Amino acid sequence: MSINRLNAFKGQFGLEMESLRVDSNGRLSSTDHTKYFKEDNSFISRDFSESQIEMITPPCSTVNEALDFLVNIKNVVLTSIGDELLWPQSNPPILPDESEILIANYSDSDKKDYREYLALKYGRKKSVLSGIHFNLSFSDSYINDLNNNDCESRIEFQNRLYLQVAKYFMKYRWFFIRLTAAGPVFHSSFSDRCVQLVGHDYKENCISEGMQSLRNSLCGYRNNEFLTYDYSSLSNYKKSISTHIDNGVLINESEVYEAVRIKTDDDGNAKYLELRFIDLNPELEHGVNLEDLKFLHMMFVYFSTLEDFEFDESSQIEAEFKSIIANDGTSWKQDDEYNVYDFEAEANDLIKNLENVLAESDIEYYDYSAIIKNIEYRLTPGFGYADKILKGVSTNDYITYHLDKAKEAKKRALMNPYNFYGNESLELSTKILLKSAIKMGVQFKIMDERENFVFLENRTTGQSHFVKQATKTNLDRYGSVLAMENKNVTKYILSKDGINVPKGYAFTSIKDALSAFEDSRNDRLTVIKPNNTNFGIGITILKEPYSRDEYTKAIEFAFEHDDTVLVEEFHSGKEYRFLVIDGEVIGVLNREAANVIGNGKSTIGELIESKNLDPLRGRGYVTPLEVIDMDVILIDYLSKQGLTLDSIPAEKERIYLRENSNISTGGDSIDFTDDVHISYKNKAIRAVSAIGANICGVDMIIQDIEAPADDENHTIIELNFNPAIHIHCYPYIGKNRYAGDKILQALFRGIV
Amino acid sequence: MSINRLNAFKGQFGLEMESLRVDSNGRLSSTDHTKYFKEDNSFISRDFSESQIEMITPPCSTVNEALDFLVNIKNVVLTSIGDELLWPQSNPPILPDESEILIANYSDSDKKDYREYLALKYGRKKSVLSGIHFNLSFSDSYINDLNNNDCESRIEFQNRLYLQVAKYFMKYRWFFIRLTAAGPVFHSSFSDRCVQLVGHDYKENCISEGMQSLRNSLCGYRNNEFLTYDYSSLSNYKKSISTHIDNGVLINESEVYEAVRIKTDDDGNAKYLELRFIDLNPELEHGVNLEDLKFLHMMFVYFSTLEDFEFDESSQIEAEFKSIIANDGTSWKQDDEYNVYDFEAEANDLIKNLENVLAESDIEYYDYSAIIKNIEYRLTPGFGYADKILKGVSTNDYITYHLDKAKEAKKRALMNPYNFYGNESLELSTKILLKSAIKMGVQFKIMDERENFVFLENRTTGQSHFVKQATKTNLDRYGSVLAMENKNVTKYILSKDGINVPKGYAFTSIKDALSAFEDSRNDRLTVIKPNNTNFGIGITILKEPYSRDEYTKAIEFAFEHDDTVLVEEFHSGKEYRFLVIDGEVIGVLNREAANVIGNGKSTIGELIESKNLDPLRGRGYVTPLEVIDMDVILIDYLSKQGLTLDSIPAEKERIYLRENSNISTGGDSIDFTDDVHISYKNKAIRAVSAIGANICGVDMIIQDIEAPADDENHTIIELNFNPAIHIHCYPYIGKNRYAGDKILQALFRGIV
Repeated sequence: MSINRLNAFKGQFGLEMESLRVDSNGRLSSTDHTKYFKEDNSFISRDFSESQIEMITPPCSTVNEALDFLVNIKNVVLTSIGDELLWPQSNPPILPDESEILIANYSDSDKKDYREYLALKYGRKKSVLSGIHFNLSFSDSYINDLNNNDCESRIEFQNRLYLQVAKYFMKYRWFFIRLTAAGPVFHSSFSDRCVQLVGHDYKENCISEGMQSLRNSLCGYRNNEFLTYDYSSLSNYKKSISTHIDNGVLINESEVYEAVRIKTDDDGNAKYLELRFIDLNPELEHGVNLEDLKFLHMMFVYFSTLEDFEFDESSQIEAEFKSIIANDGTSWKQDDEYNVYDFEAEANDLIKNLENVLAESDIEYYDYSAIIKNIEYRLTPGFGYADKILKGVSTNDYITYHLDKAKEAKKRALMNPYNFYGNESLELSTKILLKSAIKMGVQFKIMDERENFVFLENRTTGQSHFVKQATKTNLDRYGSVLAMENKNVTKYILSKDGINVPKGYAFTSIKDALSAFEDSRNDRLTVIKPNNTNFGIGITILKEPYSRDEYTKAIEFAFEHDDTVLVEEFHSGKEYRFLVIDGEVIGVLNREAANVIGNGKSTIGELIESKNLDPLRGRGYVTPLEVIDMDVILIDYLSKQGLTLDSIPAEKERIYLRENSNISTGGDSIDFTDDVHISYKNKAIRAVSAIGANICGVDMIIQDIEAPADDENHTIIELNFNPAIHIHCYPYIGKNRYAGDKILQALFRGIV
Repeated sequence: MSINRLNAFKGQFGLEMESLRVDSNGRLSSTDHTKYFKEDNSFISRDFSESQIEMITPPCSTVNEALDFLVNIKNVVLTSIGDELLWPQSNPPILPDESEILIANYSDSDKKDYREYLALKYGRKKSVLSGIHFNLSFSDSYINDLNNNDCESRIEFQNRLYLQVAKYFMKYRWFFIRLTAAGPVFHSSFSDRCVQLVGHDYKENCISEGMQSLRNSLCGYRNNEFLTYDYSSLSNYKKSISTHIDNGVLINESEVYEAVRIKTDDDGNAKYLELRFIDLNPELEHGVNLEDLKFLHMMFVYFSTLEDFEFDESSQIEAEFKSIIANDGTSWKQDDEYNVYDFEAEANDLIKNLENVLAESDIEYYDYSAIIKNIEYRLTPGFGYADKILKGVSTNDYITYHLDKAKEAKKRALMNPYNFYGNESLELSTKILLKSAIKMGVQFKIMDERENFVFLENRTTGQSHFVKQATKTNLDRYGSVLAMENKNVTKYILSKDGINVPKGYAFTSIKDALSAFEDSRNDRLTVIKPNNTNFGIGITILKEPYSRDEYTKAIEFAFEHDDTVLVEEFHSGKEYRFLVIDGEVIGVLNREAANVIGNGKSTIGELIESKNLDPLRGRGYVTPLEVIDMDVILIDYLSKQGLTLDSIPAEKERIYLRENSNISTGGDSIDFTDDVHISYKNKAIRAVSAIGANICGVDMIIQDIEAPADDENHTIIELNFNPAIHIHCYPYIGKNRYAGDKILQALFRGIV
């Protein structure tokens, strides 16, 4: 049977990755999980020990998506656990004594009791072995397709199908374990019995020759006695588990430490498979490889197309035996006295058959040839993951090697904390919000990536929200948003409420504007400007006493650039952005025009180049700041100051490079949240309340942020209903103000 | 002093117009005011009698605006009082016996007591004489300008200024009364004493030769004895009123029946003047003339530029005398034995002086030459308003003549109920909302006419709302609005809530769309269409079993017209728009393609012409329906049916003229609110609630509106956050569903 339906590859996919928190010396962390994350976070949980982070993706519609999601969770964890690291290896870091490994302190006593039981039965050290679980399901339409000509009920067929695929994975698990094994070495602080069995070298490395994966070995994460099951039907399989439980061999289903688990719904029907053998791989950037996951997925589909087979007790014993020797033996091809199996030939057969089936399909879902080529390469003795790791450990010791990997991963996460894998085209603000959602355990769905439209949901309470561009939410009412969108309306509402706004008028005809000559005069300067201007174009500032003629020229000039022209009092001072969320000022920011500060040695060009190295700076709004382009405008602006790119500014001399303070042309964002006088914060909050908004960016011109606000020294020039949040999270100078967290707290008040 | 500052003409202006409700025979109405309007409506009130409507504009920034506002109030009244009419004349209609004229039944007993007092003192018949009051103020900046070189305090100066202008108006009131007089005749049912004085003809007309304005005559609306006041200062003037009250001549300030009133604030300072002499004029479309108001305004400004003068008792007596003889005398120029005054010469002098001052100004605020020319014409004996009215009454009788005018006004209001004077460029929906606001007494301010942005306020409670385009309000949350804006998100939310939506997918690439070939198949037809399509362009409907090839062609075709293509189940049935406001279905509407119904005689062209005569049809969305253009597309569409514009359809045969059912191309809107099965209304309400909206247009395809909704027979294809309301107020067939009223009721819940 060929795989000629795209449906075959559709389904849902999830990943779970365990990883131990360690300190910077590679010692198991002793801090509480709940210091960093809420207990009910569905993405970031604990497993056996308090320090064993479990990262869980939701069901995703592609394998790629699932891995991206996992990486996002991991990066959130890495940026949320202070100085701690994530141990990148299934085999543990430096462990304390058994008794000092803290069992996960769940408030649910059943969960705690179960872990106490495991600790007694298997030991705490073995229980912190970590791994990756890969969940796969078929799409309903594929199951329907397969079941087309059958007389079986849909659900009977589905149960049989998952059982069949599980059996194949169990039968060939020697192959899959070997392929993904990444645990050939462990530390001497691991369980005494295992260390004694293998011994350790002077670097505290424990290496058993030929061992690929400690976790999948006899010393690994497995039941104390070898158990067989009745695979003749799903219900019989379940029954055989129950029998083990009744006999006291297992305490519950969770204790079935098999390589593959058939996951069922409340009615006991198969919903998906859980592949449980994959090792955490320190050689891979994300701990697991997309190609491997795709390969497993292809196998998953391939097994669905094969004939069913009987997986009786002797077959199970044989499969177990093979899985032990293929992964603990020294060689892939057994040509010694135990040469009962030619693993290499068998593996090649399996791969070849898969390849043939895929070649016959008329739809290519994955680039399978490349994937298979890579798999074949890795099966070559000496080129597997375990080989690479052993090489790494040989130049260093086990701890140093893995610690380096852990630190690299941490550094990568911190360097680019605003990235969101798999949805790179999202705006920064939305990325920040989604990372906050992961951190806080708020479920989400990206409804429309192009529109930055997400659906957020607290599964526990059922409360949900649609959010667009991070700050367009149901916290705000539509009328308020529209009022903020219109500068005149905003000014009307604010001034009605006694809030300082620049006095002035808006005109839509030159005639009307000219007739306001008398009214335009005020105690300050008068600014005449197009309603919509970003770069200061079309603006004139007039000083009293100005003539009707000067006024007329300014009006005509402004009308050349817009249909609506504003005649306003001019306020001197710096412009600050106040980000208000839920009645609180989250951040205060000033945007400063692109600039460099001299050191007495470097040229302006060199200073710019050096400033551009900041990872916060990028191109095209994917980073919080933009690089400073040495373009004609910049060079022009320098020359007006009598400077060139080759000029060398004095030490601490600040050279401005552009007239405008836009971030988009390389401007700096500088946080003043803790510096601005409280009275301005109160003014900002009052303005937001006057217009009835919740999330709002208030642009205020302030003469001196340290002097208390009075009737004259500040003015609010604009309210923004869709304020950027990233500038407050990653300013050029200043602290992260965690605006994403605040939005979620406001949306799910009292819950997250 | 010349008027060379525009500020001079700035200020605030208001109008108050009294008018009696009458039945279709010209008899004073006996229905209660509160049957039509709330007692606390600030635009539409009662004056002396229950049937005496008083229409009150808010302060407006131009005279033009004030008149437009008055006309809008009047039209709202005319369309809200059932079959009743508004009497277009200051002098009353057919009055019942004194005792049967119902005094306004205010719940405030003080107001009622005062009216009882007036009824006893002046008689009820005199008290229902109606008129127009014109309120004018100067702008603060003009008052500041004038007071520039003075040592007087700003407020002292202001009080003196208004007093001065008031004195000039009092002095020259003979002129202004004569100019605006429009009450030369009255009905024999008026006060016995007056009828006896004048007598009546066989048509029950009472005419006193030469009388211009009954209301301003000795038989009119005036205090029982002639009173003088101390005009030496505002406070002395006030004191002299107090003295009259203390002496029992007047009961309170309201009883000062002078031609001009100085209106003061709580501190007793002058704020504006009220000119009280203007007659309701049946010869003018709006009862009062914009040119006259502008002329009075020019005089108001002119008087402010003159020297102050003493208006002592003898001057007041002289002014009174002149006002009586100039308006009750037969001739304008008195050349008989009483020839003490040459009114014509005096009037000409006054006008000439005004004209000179205006001619010297360098700013022309009004087209004063044309206005003055018209005034001069009207001063020519035989060409005044009163002369015209006498001519009208001479061919008919007093009652018939005025009744005709009243009916014409009513007809005009009903023909174009959606117009909003002074803001013609507003969208229909906003016009309807503002008319509802007037009807309900909700104050408003048009913030931005181009954007249809209005500010609504209930002055009593202080509750206010910004509303854009009539339906964008604070009743809706921003997240919900954005969700409705995105078809995919809408579908996701509705289907999550178990609401019928067309099953299907959205694709942004041809590749993805093609890969969904299998999934596209369903039990119904499959429609493939661009995400945004208005005219059916790019749409293909496929019928099972369709080939991959057919599918591919349809996908490629759709992608030619949009970046996003939808592949959906096709639902047959008619599309209905459900307008939901505040959890209630306000209206259900079906839009039918432009069509005509034959009569067996007329050609299609003639039928179209005749259908286009409907006043509901216009061009450019200023009316609820559009005219049907006989364009190429229409002729093409006819020819496809084997028809031309000259074809004659059989009686009752319906000929469709266009493929699409858009109102914009002449389609019909047909109300089904009372015909559709309640279950569909409940579905619509549920959908709106699922997305969390308040004001929402639900587009539903229904197979049979009489059959109850089930899982198959209907589907919701779109939710609209900015639904048109005018289609539900003025459908081609069906009732007005008063959507504007409903929105206001929702906004000001429990208040209006």
